Amino acid sequence: MPKQKRYAIVLAAGQGTRMKSMRHKVLHSIGGKPMIEHVIDHLNTVGIDRIIVVVGSLSEQVMEQLGDRVEYVFQHEQLGTAHAVMQAKYLLADEQGTTFVVAGDAPLIQPETLQMMVTQHEREKASVTVLTATLENPFGYGRMIRNAAGDVDRIVEQKDGTAEELAISEVNSGTYCFDNQLLFHVLSQIDNKNAQGEYYLPDCVSVLKNQGHKVIAFETKDPEEIYGVNDRLQLTTAQKIMQRWILQYHMRNGVTIMDPENTYIDADVVIGPDTMIYPGTHLHGKTIIGESCILGPNIQLTDMIIGYECHVFQTVATSSKIGPETSVGPFAYIRPNSDVGSHVKIGNFVEIKNSQIGDYTKVSHLGYVGDATVGQHTNIGCGAITVNYDGINKHRTIIGDRAFVGSNVNLIAPVKVEDGAYVVAGSTITDDVPQNALAIARERQIIKPEYAEKLRKKFQSEKESKK
Amino acid sequence: MPKQKRYAIVLAAGQGTRMKSMRHKVLHSIGGKPMIEHVIDHLNTVGIDRIIVVVGSLSEQVMEQLGDRVEYVFQHEQLGTAHAVMQAKYLLADEQGTTFVVAGDAPLIQPETLQMMVTQHEREKASVTVLTATLENPFGYGRMIRNAAGDVDRIVEQKDGTAEELAISEVNSGTYCFDNQLLFHVLSQIDNKNAQGEYYLPDCVSVLKNQGHKVIAFETKDPEEIYGVNDRLQLTTAQKIMQRWILQYHMRNGVTIMDPENTYIDADVVIGPDTMIYPGTHLHGKTIIGESCILGPNIQLTDMIIGYECHVFQTVATSSKIGPETSVGPFAYIRPNSDVGSHVKIGNFVEIKNSQIGDYTKVSHLGYVGDATVGQHTNIGCGAITVNYDGINKHRTIIGDRAFVGSNVNLIAPVKVEDGAYVVAGSTITDDVPQNALAIARERQIIKPEYAEKLRKKFQSEKESKK
Amino acid sequence: MPKQKRYAIVLAAGQGTRMKSMRHKVLHSIGGKPMIEHVIDHLNTVGIDRIIVVVGSLSEQVMEQLGDRVEYVFQHEQLGTAHAVMQAKYLLADEQGTTFVVAGDAPLIQPETLQMMVTQHEREKASVTVLTATLENPFGYGRMIRNAAGDVDRIVEQKDGTAEELAISEVNSGTYCFDNQLLFHVLSQIDNKNAQGEYYLPDCVSVLKNQGHKVIAFETKDPEEIYGVNDRLQLTTAQKIMQRWILQYHMRNGVTIMDPENTYIDADVVIGPDTMIYPGTHLHGKTIIGESCILGPNIQLTDMIIGYECHVFQTVATSSKIGPETSVGPFAYIRPNSDVGSHVKIGNFVEIKNSQIGDYTKVSHLGYVGDATVGQHTNIGCGAITVNYDGINKHRTIIGDRAFVGSNVNLIAPVKVEDGAYVVAGSTITDDVPQNALAIARERQIIKPEYAEKLRKKFQSEKESKK
Repeated sequence: MPKQKRYAIVLAAGQGTRMKSMRHKVLHSIGGKPMIEHVIDHLNTVGIDRIIVVVGSLSEQVMEQLGDRVEYVFQHEQLGTAHAVMQAKYLLADEQGTTFVVAGDAPLIQPETLQMMVTQHEREKASVTVLTATLENPFGYGRMIRNAAGDVDRIVEQKDGTAEELAISEVNSGTYCFDNQLLFHVLSQIDNKNAQGEYYLPDCVSVLKNQGHKVIAFETKDPEEIYGVNDRLQLTTAQKIMQRWILQYHMRNGVTIMDPENTYIDADVVIGPDTMIYPGTHLHGKTIIGESCILGPNIQLTDMIIGYECHVFQTVATSSKIGPETSVGPFAYIRPNSDVGSHVKIGNFVEIKNSQIGDYTKVSHLGYVGDATVGQHTNIGCGAITVNYDGINKHRTIIGDRAFVGSNVNLIAPVKVEDGAYVVAGSTITDDVPQNALAIARERQIIKPEYAEKLRKKFQSEKESKK
Repeated sequence: MPKQKRYAIVLAAGQGTRMKSMRHKVLHSIGGKPMIEHVIDHLNTVGIDRIIVVVGSLSEQVMEQLGDRVEYVFQHEQLGTAHAVMQAKYLLADEQGTTFVVAGDAPLIQPETLQMMVTQHEREKASVTVLTATLENPFGYGRMIRNAAGDVDRIVEQKDGTAEELAISEVNSGTYCFDNQLLFHVLSQIDNKNAQGEYYLPDCVSVLKNQGHKVIAFETKDPEEIYGVNDRLQLTTAQKIMQRWILQYHMRNGVTIMDPENTYIDADVVIGPDTMIYPGTHLHGKTIIGESCILGPNIQLTDMIIGYECHVFQTVATSSKIGPETSVGPFAYIRPNSDVGSHVKIGNFVEIKNSQIGDYTKVSHLGYVGDATVGQHTNIGCGAITVNYDGINKHRTIIGDRAFVGSNVNLIAPVKVEDGAYVVAGSTITDDVPQNALAIARERQIIKPEYAEKLRKKFQSEKESKK
Repeated sequence: MPKQKRYAIVLAAGQGTRMKSMRHKVLHSIGGKPMIEHVIDHLNTVGIDRIIVVVGSLSEQVMEQLGDRVEYVFQHEQLGTAHAVMQAKYLLADEQGTTFVVAGDAPLIQPETLQMMVTQHEREKASVTVLTATLENPFGYGRMIRNAAGDVDRIVEQKDGTAEELAISEVNSGTYCFDNQLLFHVLSQIDNKNAQGEYYLPDCVSVLKNQGHKVIAFETKDPEEIYGVNDRLQLTTAQKIMQRWILQYHMRNGVTIMDPENTYIDADVVIGPDTMIYPGTHLHGKTIIGESCILGPNIQLTDMIIGYECHVFQTVATSSKIGPETSVGPFAYIRPNSDVGSHVKIGNFVEIKNSQIGDYTKVSHLGYVGDATVGQHTNIGCGAITVNYDGINKHRTIIGDRAFVGSNVNLIAPVKVEDGAYVVAGSTITDDVPQNALAIARERQIIKPEYAEKLRKKFQSEKESKK
């Protein structure tokens, strides 16, 4: 049997007015990514041949986000979920296979759940499989009505249910697998004769059942998966659920997280075992952390690669690489495109930007290394600055191995400080410093005895004259 | 009918020994303000003609906080709540109208609740209206005993109640509206024949009832409102309740708060929609935030005005203004009386104090701009400093538009750098720099070949000689 | 009666594979100390004559941590808790007295509980006293089976219990007091005829009972005490329980903690009353805080001594002393062996290392004071640096009272700036500055009219030529 073709229709037409936002609801982020990106990522893990996103309000925002990774259909009036799915008819109606229908604002449904659901759907040759969950408080959700044999019969909405029906705690998640051809066949038979005047997708279930097709349910293990987002409070709740899952995953893998309620890790971050994470740690994007690191408190790392046994605290760092056994912080700022070696010290009030820093080098305090290449075992003194910008152009600074750049030195790029060179504190260096040479550029010190006292008297009389 | 006059008596005589504090209990803060300030603010929203605060222990602290915004009476011995209210007799007894009696340590009772309560009180011409709440665990509170018709009959204290009475979950909040003249009439009839030997204000209820006056209750929707504070654990709980309310208010208005459990916003802060707030954000005082900003993590803003689409992170800022589309942080410090324009960059390890910074100007790193006026499109280099203090006086620095101040430059104020001027890195500038001029004040660089190597040998031998 | 001798056997042979760690389980920390250190500390409070730690896997790590403060026995194969205790036979079997058996991974059992337990044990001359707790969810624990008279009969493990037995909510904590000689007597009678093939210590209870010895239980007030740690999620839970206890202790003593869920205080920290702690505060080690301080947000203090009425925020500080009424932060870094006086200001982007700072002195911004002694009422200007390191040796800087060190000054150590001396901004100082003298080392400023404009044109053409 050839592999069944699989399709997905993602509902993202309604902008979500309760978000009170200029941005489409599905573009609000949890776990560091727009909600709809989670939905698309999860679908892709089960192998979808074509993904169709139904857009409407603020469609240009959704299309800008997803680009050509998906296809789009437009729902110009929002006449219900069945009507939304119907917009995909001209693209999909002739296809054979399984079609997921999922909501763009339900980012917590896990890849494993989608996989198990579609596997059951295809194995049992169902016309429709409804993803369900059993909730302690099912209020507001459509209830799964089963017959005496326990088979799914239909879905009853909150407002239409009898007391007995509303006592049922198994609910419809709004996620379905359909036999594609039956889906579009049955959609044309749905009417809008209900209180809201809308075409409801759940009505497909009873129509299919009544026509003798197999209708089944797949229940999630974790009812939190079906949580959807309609306002900012729910966005926060969804964020917290996802965070809990991500953090528990890392803790089970051997990462110590001192306070999971105060640690924020995006979905795609990788962390080695025996790493210890203090509170106030934010790990974003594709960050990769080695084994046995100590991270935090108060760090923001985005798209960083950090080696093993690093100590990073009170630091902001982006799109750079840190070698093993290197220490960064407190109060350090590493900007994109930097490559810091191993056993390096990047200390307090130090900024590194677009630079390479060799192994065992120290930039201990109050320095700026930008657009520079620095060798190994070099010491960049306190307050030393690579002057990379002349107001119009940016230039590079090259510093060799075992060099010493003194405190408050300015290196006016383009300039080279060669291996073993020594730049004296307080110098402004405009010309290259050869290997093992000393460079100095400062005035001799003059002492004016007792002059400080005179000066203070002068300043004091100025102060009094101002009154 | 002329508007009824309204009065309020605020009980603040007991210092709260369980707080274990040198400060009076009602002066401890939640939501950024002393508890009694919330009480006074909330009373003022319902239009109170005279507010009388009953003070006793540490009275001078309470009076220093509230100043002449209220009147004071002294309770020299603490003989019970009825006795406390009685102290206001000589000020209020002859007045006609409604008198609130409220506790100074119950800051969570909301303005809307007070408004609805007094409206009902006056409409129903009650002698007293008791603010009540229904609690899951009513232990410790006075219970509201109602008769068969459901009318309030009396209040029974925890220690005096029968098992049946103690099973009642509607409790007295300690907040009342009284008919003013009846209040002082009935107070003189309260005795102290009880276990504590105190004069209890709740006893007024049954006395008024027995004298045929109308006695009613007004129940809060949210029982958390009546939470009072007697120790530091309860202070923390009250703080958390208020935080939750404030944060939910902003989320409902379209602000994304990634983690409400780790975000701290004072009661009077205003935030535009589509602003995103990361954890570790503290917004204090009268701070106003524009639309679509990105705030945090780890910021402390006090009395700041921030324009739209700003990005502020890892920053402390006070009593200043930031224009739209400006970026501040990480590790920036903005001190009072600064006015930063639009499209400005205030970068890492930068301090701004009492200065104006024009639009599109950059102070990117490691700089100090104090007592300065800086024009537009100007670049203040890394490590550049306005030297505003000579040890006795402070002086201003003026920098024009499109100027360039190089790295590690000192501008010795008073000094002027005019439009388009260029100050070379490493210079100390003592005299004005004219328009489009270049200023330089540094020594030429000297190279001593191979001298670094000699120096290292010298230092090394010094090191060895120390051993 | 002479005081009973007391012994303790601490079980720490299993490394805890569910931790997924290279480090032994009992060496993972909560409340700032390895779990087993809490266990040892708590035992020591009740006066233990000899503590024997049973080690096995990763024994060298445990021994390195505890050193010669305890004795060790080896369990080479892990054949059950009774077998583990048996390893101490050759050290203890002949002793008379009471022997605690405790788990190295149960750090929450409080000293008071151990004290009350052993007191009861010795008073009642029991053969064994089992520390028990009543749990809402006893699943997984051994249940305490009592006879009709309420006396302990035996302990039934989860897998062996009948439905009726498993309904019992009183459980075995795994902590015991034994009569030492009876313990080793009965241990030899325990077999391993059970599902796991292990020798179980709880089996001692029924054997002792059956032999007519007195077997009793001591129940903790707080069931959280018996919480043990087997994986990183449980480590986090234990950490949170301990944090809650520590924070409540401080709040009851008069410390305001704005958000206990976001404040981290190690077990041995001391804090004066009326100190206010903002979120993101981490107090580690033996830190001692005075009265009426304001701490946080975002500070990390380790082994610090802070005087009264200090304000410390956005700061990292270690192993140093801060005098009263001193202000530190934001973004300050105090490194070990510093002694900062009273009324001092350590401001933003300032690092202090191994230095003494006199009373009323200011290091307000962007400075580094390392290996220095600074007097009183002295002003260290913005960007001023003590150049303490020549690449090989470190040297000291001495600055007197009422001195003024200008902005961006370098003090090349060893160097002395005497009382009342004035160092002009931008100077690099290599020689001592006498009392009240002025020192200057900088070049005169040169103005090149219109040259800035020429320079910009040159830079612009360079830019274009690069394209």
